[in-house]
Amino acid sequence: MGNIQVDYDLLYSVTAELLEKMVGYPKEISLIAAHGLVEADARGHSSHGVARINMYYDWVLSGKCDPNGVPEITYDTPISLVINGNKGPGFSVAKFAMSKTIEKAKEIGTCMTVVYDSSHFGMSGLWAEMAADEGMIGIALSNTLKAGIPSFGKERILGTNPICVAIPVGKKPHFMLDMATTTVSLGKIEMAARRGGIMPTGWAVDENGLDTTDALNVADINRNNISPNSGLLYIGGAGETLGGHKGYGLGLLVELLTSGLSLGTASYDTYQDRCGICHYFQATRMDVFGVEKDIINHIGSILNRIRNSSSAAGEERIYIHGEKEFEQRIRSMEDGVSLDQVTWDRLTEFAKQYNIRLAV
Amino acid sequence: MGNIQVDYDLLYSVTAELLEKMVGYPKEISLIAAHGLVEADARGHSSHGVARINMYYDWVLSGKCDPNGVPEITYDTPISLVINGNKGPGFSVAKFAMSKTIEKAKEIGTCMTVVYDSSHFGMSGLWAEMAADEGMIGIALSNTLKAGIPSFGKERILGTNPICVAIPVGKKPHFMLDMATTTVSLGKIEMAARRGGIMPTGWAVDENGLDTTDALNVADINRNNISPNSGLLYIGGAGETLGGHKGYGLGLLVELLTSGLSLGTASYDTYQDRCGICHYFQATRMDVFGVEKDIINHIGSILNRIRNSSSAAGEERIYIHGEKEFEQRIRSMEDGVSLDQVTWDRLTEFAKQYNIRLAV
Repeated sequence: MGNIQVDYDLLYSVTAELLEKMVGYPKEISLIAAHGLVEADARGHSSHGVARINMYYDWVLSGKCDPNGVPEITYDTPISLVINGNKGPGFSVAKFAMSKTIEKAKEIGTCMTVVYDSSHFGMSGLWAEMAADEGMIGIALSNTLKAGIPSFGKERILGTNPICVAIPVGKKPHFMLDMATTTVSLGKIEMAARRGGIMPTGWAVDENGLDTTDALNVADINRNNISPNSGLLYIGGAGETLGGHKGYGLGLLVELLTSGLSLGTASYDTYQDRCGICHYFQATRMDVFGVEKDIINHIGSILNRIRNSSSAAGEERIYIHGEKEFEQRIRSMEDGVSLDQVTWDRLTEFAKQYNIRLAV
Repeated sequence: MGNIQVDYDLLYSVTAELLEKMVGYPKEISLIAAHGLVEADARGHSSHGVARINMYYDWVLSGKCDPNGVPEITYDTPISLVINGNKGPGFSVAKFAMSKTIEKAKEIGTCMTVVYDSSHFGMSGLWAEMAADEGMIGIALSNTLKAGIPSFGKERILGTNPICVAIPVGKKPHFMLDMATTTVSLGKIEMAARRGGIMPTGWAVDENGLDTTDALNVADINRNNISPNSGLLYIGGAGETLGGHKGYGLGLLVELLTSGLSLGTASYDTYQDRCGICHYFQATRMDVFGVEKDIINHIGSILNRIRNSSSAAGEERIYIHGEKEFEQRIRSMEDGVSLDQVTWDRLTEFAKQYNIRLAV
């Protein structure tokens, strides 16, 4: 089945109502989470979009996430915060944490915040972007469900542990690097499994820890937790020849800055009695490095030079990180948000069940 | 020719004397730089070791580096510093910058420092480690000579732009991720060129921006600057299938945090009338996130869990970043520092020229 275009506002209102009536989030949190999910779809990141609503539902149902969990600051210094997410929805915990981080950074120039006992916060870009929207450098990191394999290992033990850094460049789009430290997400392997069963080497290893192209097998083991072994490779792939130890190092770094510093749950222990997800946020004022306008101009000129560099044979364009998503979002606002038909049918089915009107 | 083992102290004293008498560094700077170069060899990173002494010599000779250039603080806030390297040797500029960064971090908890108009500072690990030795999280980033290709590009425009993060874990080795954001260095491609001329795909592109295994051609173009095109790929390789856009994003991020924030020279403009290299340093006290001992114990337990996870078929061990270098250093102190014969012969030849005694 193909994709259909759904009006942004309609998708937002249906999602918000579902989050409230089906998932059980308080109204205010439903709005924050609906915004996060619909933004992901609108920017072309359906892996973090409304299709995931069931996942959030399951966590509330099983008691791993408390829809009424309210985050609280448990420790602070002039330049840092520690926040207990109290099992709350990741979207509201992250919004609270980044808001407090920005507040503090406004005063002294920077703030670093670690969060424990939160849950999945959607696309990392949402939170780093909050800082960039205020003219600051924003960082958002998170650990996740265990999914990734260390170099020379075979056991799923670290998360896809995303890194997002947003740097304001005067006008949108910000420079926005938003990346899982694994080569791809499990979702991409499942897609390959559906489309013929083959994936490139460098994406994942089998139960013996060996690089494999068998997407069907990896998707099955990982989705159904058939074995503790087999999982995603970090960027650079298996071994060290293509820098796999670097990708694994970045994934591990994110683990240490999130669960390590917060004394929270490491990826390999998440989703037991609670989601247990940990985050790291930072906001830094640009003017701590000089005259803000000069810095933004200089960064802009560097990005222009890169953008205008010669492209490879057969390629049209050098992208700066954040541009693709920004342009996709413009198209989504004009033509509707692209959703696969299955996801939309499921949403409308739920909407009927919960007496939600399919109109803005 | 093979490798020989050279006594650490001998290698250090010869290198220091050469840096003073041949390269022209003041004595104090020669000691700092000799330490940095010999440490790189002792840890198994010969790409940043004494073999590079000619490179430092050439920059002084051509006026791109001023051996008497003294770094100065040009801007500061409670949590940040901007430093003008004044064309000085990268080793002494970096040592000055990281020392000041640590001093400030001791007071308020963190300090972020950007440096412009410096030069090559050796192995990034040297500087991040200074913070970790003081019980702090250390970060060291640098731009470099232009060498790398953006995703879908073909022009050498960004540097190998290394990232180093050191996190103390109670006793050495620290967790120490020290990585070029390119898949490999040009040195590794030159080695492949000498050993048969073939390299793996994912390392570099040719003049058309296409992934190539022709190490001879890439080494020739890049070493001799035959074309502005062809250069190193970032981790993840060409295109987006294996995450090359993520590696390129990390390289670009380092560029923006170094030359971008400092208003310094971007990688594509380095080594004109000056080296023009820019750095970013950060030191952060662990106790801004709670009780230091608890955090270190928690991080230690996470690393142990990773270390003890199941290894892939045919593999013996899961490494934590920093362990290989730490163990190699112990061997080097016991058995001598492993150097290739050519490098040692060249050093002893220089030593004779400058009347340097080959004894401790």
